Amino acid sequence: MSTEDHLNVAIVGGGAAGMTAASRIKRLRPEWSVDVFERTAYVSHAPCGVPFYLSGVVNSVFDLCAYDVNFFKEQRGINVHLNANVIGIEDNYLEVVERGERKRYEWDKLIIATGSRARRLNVGCEELEGVTCVHNIENAPLIKGILNRFDNVVIVGSGYIGVELADAISRSRRVTVIEQGSHPLPEYDPEISDILLAEMRNKVDLRLNEKVVEIVGKERVEKVVTDKGEYPADLVIVAVGIEPNNELAKQIGAELGKSGAIKTNEFMETTVENVYAAGDCAECINLITGKQDWIPLATPANKMGYVAGSNVAGQRIKFPGALKSQITSFYDLEIGKVGLSEKEAVKHGYDPVSVTITTRTRARYIPDGKVTLKIVADSNTHRVLGVQAIGRGISHRIYGAAALMYKKASVEDFFFADFPYYPPVTPVWDPLVLAARNLFRKLGIN
Amino acid sequence: MSTEDHLNVAIVGGGAAGMTAASRIKRLRPEWSVDVFERTAYVSHAPCGVPFYLSGVVNSVFDLCAYDVNFFKEQRGINVHLNANVIGIEDNYLEVVERGERKRYEWDKLIIATGSRARRLNVGCEELEGVTCVHNIENAPLIKGILNRFDNVVIVGSGYIGVELADAISRSRRVTVIEQGSHPLPEYDPEISDILLAEMRNKVDLRLNEKVVEIVGKERVEKVVTDKGEYPADLVIVAVGIEPNNELAKQIGAELGKSGAIKTNEFMETTVENVYAAGDCAECINLITGKQDWIPLATPANKMGYVAGSNVAGQRIKFPGALKSQITSFYDLEIGKVGLSEKEAVKHGYDPVSVTITTRTRARYIPDGKVTLKIVADSNTHRVLGVQAIGRGISHRIYGAAALMYKKASVEDFFFADFPYYPPVTPVWDPLVLAARNLFRKLGIN
Repeated sequence: MSTEDHLNVAIVGGGAAGMTAASRIKRLRPEWSVDVFERTAYVSHAPCGVPFYLSGVVNSVFDLCAYDVNFFKEQRGINVHLNANVIGIEDNYLEVVERGERKRYEWDKLIIATGSRARRLNVGCEELEGVTCVHNIENAPLIKGILNRFDNVVIVGSGYIGVELADAISRSRRVTVIEQGSHPLPEYDPEISDILLAEMRNKVDLRLNEKVVEIVGKERVEKVVTDKGEYPADLVIVAVGIEPNNELAKQIGAELGKSGAIKTNEFMETTVENVYAAGDCAECINLITGKQDWIPLATPANKMGYVAGSNVAGQRIKFPGALKSQITSFYDLEIGKVGLSEKEAVKHGYDPVSVTITTRTRARYIPDGKVTLKIVADSNTHRVLGVQAIGRGISHRIYGAAALMYKKASVEDFFFADFPYYPPVTPVWDPLVLAARNLFRKLGIN
Repeated sequence: MSTEDHLNVAIVGGGAAGMTAASRIKRLRPEWSVDVFERTAYVSHAPCGVPFYLSGVVNSVFDLCAYDVNFFKEQRGINVHLNANVIGIEDNYLEVVERGERKRYEWDKLIIATGSRARRLNVGCEELEGVTCVHNIENAPLIKGILNRFDNVVIVGSGYIGVELADAISRSRRVTVIEQGSHPLPEYDPEISDILLAEMRNKVDLRLNEKVVEIVGKERVEKVVTDKGEYPADLVIVAVGIEPNNELAKQIGAELGKSGAIKTNEFMETTVENVYAAGDCAECINLITGKQDWIPLATPANKMGYVAGSNVAGQRIKFPGALKSQITSFYDLEIGKVGLSEKEAVKHGYDPVSVTITTRTRARYIPDGKVTLKIVADSNTHRVLGVQAIGRGISHRIYGAAALMYKKASVEDFFFADFPYYPPVTPVWDPLVLAARNLFRKLGIN
């Protein structure tokens, strides 16, 4: 039996959010029982590392896990159940299939941290050998095995995952990338993604505005058929986005948001008492729009887990929300985004103004490449809504922009924020500052 | 004669602040006369580049100037007077010695942008051949000439300039660094500067707690004598700090601050009507303490110039202040600081708490070095007062910290600021976030 002094906490999902929440609860309430049920053989897994495993930077998939399961069991006292599939959920217990056996666990407080899954193409034959996704680290060794034997790789989709895989695999294999839209990284504005597009054309066979209609093969995959052509394929990686694992939440009656992810308040509480949600399966506040949004990224996932765990353990802290801050790269191009693109700003009802500049990333006398940076602001409030950048020296600009936008900064703040000057790192007028200054004119200030 | 439609603006000093102000005025008031009087043969010179010239990264000192004088004359219509020494200043005119000739220029509005100069040691024999400083780019070619012929270099002082010179010169010459204090970069706390100290010992002969008492030589310098020993020297570079060029300001009766730099308000106005000051010769608000401070760095200098120029031209914009944001490096160590060190915080009357962490700069599976990061906060308000870092991957953390601190961020803000995650750039828990989380405990929150 449970008393206030000894509660049973169940956490479904052992990814970033789930393990962070579990660790937090055991820290604050060492006497409580915390059980984590993880469907795969891995905890604290970081799918963002898969491209680095495929390119050979990382040798073992186990290295992609922040910590191994024994660390959580022995050092933190968390009951981690691997290969444990939660099949039923009720008011105060879970039904779990664990190593083939059906078991029942009682809970007083529950955290749903079931994450997300790769979206399917639904064109048939997606079960063929050689057709896969890389959403989690489970099938990464399989992909590597195929890559060792075959040459023709087709990647469907050119979001972050598609672009990073194209980078990793095209260094040693023939890669075709098929994208339904007009540009890779569809969340970016074309001023930025045009530059990526040109570089991708140098490295892979990039097929834009093309839709996959069939995947063909007998035992193994043989080719991908689109509305415009056919591509021989030994390996097809489907990277057309993700969707939240919301089935358990539905079962227990928790309300979902428009995105299909679980609705939460600032305390990461769902609409069901004593049930919390965190990570890729949950919605949170978009710090630009102030509205509920689905931001399935690792950093907010960890922090949602921290907040959910803290509140389960009796604290009362708020998760303020996220900015969709992102960095990626393709060969020598670094690419980053915080907040909204211009087209996203319009979609959210803003009246945006923007400036795109191409400028040096460092002092002019230090040899280096260039950066193209776009800043989008609300013409009414002067608040900066988004920053996108591509080229060299991206990360410090994206960090600076994320920090300012977290504090709801205006264009004037971007100009006056006191970034450091050091010739090998930045020119004396940082690209962020320069872009803000150019925006002054469009806004009719100064 | 002057009318509102046609004013004469005189600017004393053609460095970053002066040229930015001049450009701004001509942009807003193309019909006004703007005269810049520069003592040297260079405008828009960037002394921060000198180490890169000495190490050979940059071939010509002219490359260290952001723009050449013809650009300002022809493209921007500014009357630039080179080798023009302002020797007298009165209510409405300047006395200038220009190419040996004494001239008089009337002004309606005046900007003092006289910059700063290297502090002298005052131990005698500082006029010997081979004893110099690198505060401006004028004598850089001379130093390079000496380095081509001689081997023993003594650098006195280990602030930014001393450390950067030691890096540049020790790659090909024997370098002794003599520092009066216990650590290099005296503005840093020892948790950070201890790491630099250890690396400097590998590359140069570092002499701490030692005071230069004499510089000895006949025509050329021969040795440096300290209170503890003697060091043979073919070249002595004195880098013991700088002081503001405030003589003209005194002459015209403008009030000086405690630092000796010119007192200004947010509009960059001095206490004398129609006289403005900007750049290294002027004080501004320290954004942490909220008090007047002397922050002689390139980024604020440019922005003070922008603000002074805007206001001279009839706008009314405020310079909010600066954070003393800085980045430098020594061999593979990058080093950065924003705001106050802990000892500076104590000196300013705060009751600070701090955390120093040493952690990975990137995802654990990406090979890389480490970063040591110290965060200092006010125990009463939880406001972050300063961040210092040393190691690899410094610049994005310093940018993020500067942006947050510009917006008066708390420790909680540092934890929740939504920095991006990308394995080659940062681990999922950024060092800034990790440090903030550790500080929660010391502050008794969460």
